[in-house]
Amino acid sequence: MPRLLLLVKPSDLPAYQAALQTAQLPDLELVTTPDPDVEIILGDPALFRSHLQGLPALRWVQATWAGIESLLDPALRHDYILTNARGVFGPLMSEYVFSYLLLRERRILERLAAQQRNQWSPALTGTLRGKTIGLLGVGSIGAHLASTARHFGMTVRGYTRASESCQAVDRYYHGEDLLKFASGLDVLVNVLPNTPATHTIVDAEVLNALADQAVLINAGRGSALDDSALLAALQSKRLSAAVLDVFREEPLPPSHPFWGVDNLYITSHTAAPSFPQDLANLFIENYRLYINNRPLQYQVSFEQGY
Amino acid sequence: MPRLLLLVKPSDLPAYQAALQTAQLPDLELVTTPDPDVEIILGDPALFRSHLQGLPALRWVQATWAGIESLLDPALRHDYILTNARGVFGPLMSEYVFSYLLLRERRILERLAAQQRNQWSPALTGTLRGKTIGLLGVGSIGAHLASTARHFGMTVRGYTRASESCQAVDRYYHGEDLLKFASGLDVLVNVLPNTPATHTIVDAEVLNALADQAVLINAGRGSALDDSALLAALQSKRLSAAVLDVFREEPLPPSHPFWGVDNLYITSHTAAPSFPQDLANLFIENYRLYINNRPLQYQVSFEQGY
Repeated sequence: MPRLLLLVKPSDLPAYQAALQTAQLPDLELVTTPDPDVEIILGDPALFRSHLQGLPALRWVQATWAGIESLLDPALRHDYILTNARGVFGPLMSEYVFSYLLLRERRILERLAAQQRNQWSPALTGTLRGKTIGLLGVGSIGAHLASTARHFGMTVRGYTRASESCQAVDRYYHGEDLLKFASGLDVLVNVLPNTPATHTIVDAEVLNALADQAVLINAGRGSALDDSALLAALQSKRLSAAVLDVFREEPLPPSHPFWGVDNLYITSHTAAPSFPQDLANLFIENYRLYINNRPLQYQVSFEQGY
Repeated sequence: MPRLLLLVKPSDLPAYQAALQTAQLPDLELVTTPDPDVEIILGDPALFRSHLQGLPALRWVQATWAGIESLLDPALRHDYILTNARGVFGPLMSEYVFSYLLLRERRILERLAAQQRNQWSPALTGTLRGKTIGLLGVGSIGAHLASTARHFGMTVRGYTRASESCQAVDRYYHGEDLLKFASGLDVLVNVLPNTPATHTIVDAEVLNALADQAVLINAGRGSALDDSALLAALQSKRLSAAVLDVFREEPLPPSHPFWGVDNLYITSHTAAPSFPQDLANLFIENYRLYINNRPLQYQVSFEQGY
């Protein structure tokens, strides 16, 4: 009988417990504190990371987050199967990205300001239709963003290491073609994971390659972005706006220059929250594979880092 | 050689002329002032309405707007084919409706307020997924809204006179089932045209039938809404927000109580603008049908009023 250690935020615990009980998983024993017989962990990396070494029977860890960088540390054990949260974030990330793109196109803030003066403001709206969006990374999140962009009539470019599997991407770019990919984009969205290859991938050259008045959205990792280059591009009005969910240091320190920049939207790492029901469902699917000795979904390679 | 009278806003005129010239329509003669040989009008109802009676050769009018109420006046002639603008507004209306729905779910205004205090604000976001949207009217605009709602994982109800042709609607309601349709909706969107049957269709009973904290969006006609009932529902916090594009009097008078209401967004009849290129394309398609004596798209019945 596999013993599962559930380690999530206290406020999320009841929702996870309820979802797991409803699923009536065969032979599963649920505990919420570590003990030597724990074979499986379902939890937040920040909460279980320090317990990994003390669990001799550990075989599988299902992280409730997408970001598992903290588990790649060579000082930690890597002799277990690590699966992370994927598949569940695509729709949320679409809501995130398109909420801000539409906020800009529809001039919502300008209209609200006019409303506060009791002023009818028929200024013409913009549209996403016909614009070009570029996705840095086209995994399950990027694929959902691509389908949403298509729905709104945008042209979609994708930049990946090699894969070209998403039908909603109009054109793929790889490797050295980063600047060709970025050239003339109206919107650039980064959803790449944090790996050495993605450090500062959005640099001054990439930003300069975008269309005039482009919008940058970073929902991958803070390390992907050259902060100073972005500041310069916003202050010179070359870019029309940036939406940042992730930062090199989180929470973003109150003294950081980003806070006061016009048309820079700070969303405090809320783009794609791990809703307990979604993550419990993902675990349940994987658990059914696990007890049948079948390969699990969303396995992370400790070598590749994703 | 059919003579076309083009009567649009002066600022739109060059875009229309360019689009029509590019299309090289056979045998078309373009004029911008009325004369007795005019056979076709392409224009804004407000601009050509007063010229209708003086055009003996008139056979067809392509309006650049969806709203053609002013042409139904029994004092005006009705002995021509009237086609209005349809098909082109669906994508724009989706951008409009979902911009405000996502603004609310993502708490964009709250996050912007926190940002002005240099404050990291990880408050949990909401999601459209799993919520239920009701569409009052499922023509080409409602059908596009339905497809967008589906894309975001919403359940879709449609209220129509009889039609059930849109696949993206999960369940249809008609006639006396208006309150059943409205019952428990998280979002109600009105896109019905202005006809006697739609006057004040969104009344206190309908608003009371919605789910607690529902959002109302009126992008049809101002006459569809009971203004006082909406004010009461917003002030009592029964509804969480309303987004109004259209009003019984436009521009909305500066003294109207709507201006100062919390969570009421006034968008000044900008939801679905008539972009010249879209309307020119619509005219061009219809013109090709016209010269081949085939039925035109989007004909309006003077009797039914739509």
